[in-house]
Amino acid sequence: MTARIAIDCMGGDHGPSVTVPAALRFLETHPDASLLLVGRDEALRPLLKGRASDSRLRIVHASEVVEMDESPALALRNKKDSSMRVAINLVKNGDADACVSAGNTGALMAISRFVLKMLPGIERPAICTAIPTSSGHTHMLDLGANVDCAPEHLLQFGIMGAMLVSSTEHLERPTVGILNIGEEEIKGNEVVKSAAELLRESGLNFVGNVEGDGIFKGEADVIVCDGFVGNVALKTSEGLAQMLSSSLRAEFSRNFLTKFAALVAMSVLNRFKRRFDHRQYNGAVLLGLKGISVKSHGSADSFAFGCAIARAYDAVENNVIEHIAARIGAVARKQDVNKDAG
Amino acid sequence: MTARIAIDCMGGDHGPSVTVPAALRFLETHPDASLLLVGRDEALRPLLKGRASDSRLRIVHASEVVEMDESPALALRNKKDSSMRVAINLVKNGDADACVSAGNTGALMAISRFVLKMLPGIERPAICTAIPTSSGHTHMLDLGANVDCAPEHLLQFGIMGAMLVSSTEHLERPTVGILNIGEEEIKGNEVVKSAAELLRESGLNFVGNVEGDGIFKGEADVIVCDGFVGNVALKTSEGLAQMLSSSLRAEFSRNFLTKFAALVAMSVLNRFKRRFDHRQYNGAVLLGLKGISVKSHGSADSFAFGCAIARAYDAVENNVIEHIAARIGAVARKQDVNKDAG
Repeated sequence: MTARIAIDCMGGDHGPSVTVPAALRFLETHPDASLLLVGRDEALRPLLKGRASDSRLRIVHASEVVEMDESPALALRNKKDSSMRVAINLVKNGDADACVSAGNTGALMAISRFVLKMLPGIERPAICTAIPTSSGHTHMLDLGANVDCAPEHLLQFGIMGAMLVSSTEHLERPTVGILNIGEEEIKGNEVVKSAAELLRESGLNFVGNVEGDGIFKGEADVIVCDGFVGNVALKTSEGLAQMLSSSLRAEFSRNFLTKFAALVAMSVLNRFKRRFDHRQYNGAVLLGLKGISVKSHGSADSFAFGCAIARAYDAVENNVIEHIAARIGAVARKQDVNKDAG
Repeated sequence: MTARIAIDCMGGDHGPSVTVPAALRFLETHPDASLLLVGRDEALRPLLKGRASDSRLRIVHASEVVEMDESPALALRNKKDSSMRVAINLVKNGDADACVSAGNTGALMAISRFVLKMLPGIERPAICTAIPTSSGHTHMLDLGANVDCAPEHLLQFGIMGAMLVSSTEHLERPTVGILNIGEEEIKGNEVVKSAAELLRESGLNFVGNVEGDGIFKGEADVIVCDGFVGNVALKTSEGLAQMLSSSLRAEFSRNFLTKFAALVAMSVLNRFKRRFDHRQYNGAVLLGLKGISVKSHGSADSFAFGCAIARAYDAVENNVIEHIAARIGAVARKQDVNKDAG
């Protein structure tokens, strides 16, 4: 099978100047993949250079662009020929196996959901991404698609996350935890407590509560939370990492002596930087849909955007959607059996 | 006025071996303060050395200790002579102006609330602490006292936080923001949206939404959120900072060359470490009560515990409770006027 990926080349802060070079490089490292570059033909073609005749590369013209700050509802209603919409349509029609966009998150979610539809048994889509930990990485979901969740939704997130990790990382029984607060009198709210019960009975490898600091200790392969909490946790981490790294840089460029120290420590600092380079974790999968839709950071550079394309590729190659559909079905049947027995 | 602070000397992971030395050092740097050391007399007295006759220092015997993992409800009901309970009673009876404990958070909250009672007009207490930012620091609340909050509670948190900051930091109109998620279709849940409305009409210097990464950009002097989200954000930050610092240390101790680099970069790294030393931010104030109760990290060392005592001292010296009570009253009157006019 040849994975075919549709790329919204107009989305993101930098548009084609980032997405097209990333696409070209991706083709070089993935000889079995083909890409559909979606966007204004006149904006994309000049960037292809000598590659215009590559059979694994095709431009699909789309006349409009969803703006980064555009209302998702308006984008869904009015921009029928946007590069984002056309890329998602290609997945819907079977011309592509996945789509990738660095555009407006809300619009990508709304249009993906409207065009691709939900998998049977899943009520809410969830945004899932990998996060570095001290021992490797973990996957967290939801990161902002749903601000209010019922326990059943969190259970479904757990199933989807576990299936994503088991299929793309070939872990047979990934551990699943639920993000909670620990020390207080009432440990977590009612939704989290009920969701933990459902996860415990789900047949997943559920390890219970994970606190905020447990995320980075790698206490679970998959961490489930509602989109409000997940989004806050993710952005808080990004903000802290950014502050620490710019402060460290500032300390090292303070004067001649500190600059010399930086020179001596350069290789150590670079190793450290590479280890936690957030760009390699770029690419959040919108799970729960009948097709694969991947969201890149809007500010991604070409390396980071390439990582998002690779994430879509991995999801296709490892049949993530089929795995999720099968497991959701199995849990639903198990619950029916429990109900009949109860 | 002489600030008198009651210290639960038995609480925390290390008990008197940390709390008593911190108390003795605090007395040296604060000549106008006096301390009541609460705990088992036989455990505390040997640690006083030559200071037993200091008129600013008194041991108050308490026979019991609340365990770190004890149920707050049981601690409240059964441990009437615990060091924590006795310290809080001293505040209630007017023998102390504030209490400080590194013990069980849930128990401290439950007992403080039961003994000290809430200020009129405030329905829920909140845990508030300072957090470093790129430009200084911010204050965040609630950090775990309340898992589910109504908009009115978040408004009250905003008022309490603003009064804490304006009185202890002598900022006339501290900015107040509400923690929210930004990019998505529905910006925040209903509670946050309604709370933002209330804050906008409150007369506080309300600056609107702050996203997770905005915490560290110093976008507001006070950031309001419910206790679940706040606790996750705080612990996520702590976990990430811990992971990054131990990874940096590991990279620098990898071999002879990297150890040499560490030596050269030592002064830079130490400056960096000092700037973000979490110990100096130790000491969360439980706001909304008729007395001052400060929670130290359970794992605090003597320096960190001293910072928590200093936080209690600052709250006493700057009449935080009187400021909160006055402002809550003023906002309530304003709302009544609005209601009458509406």
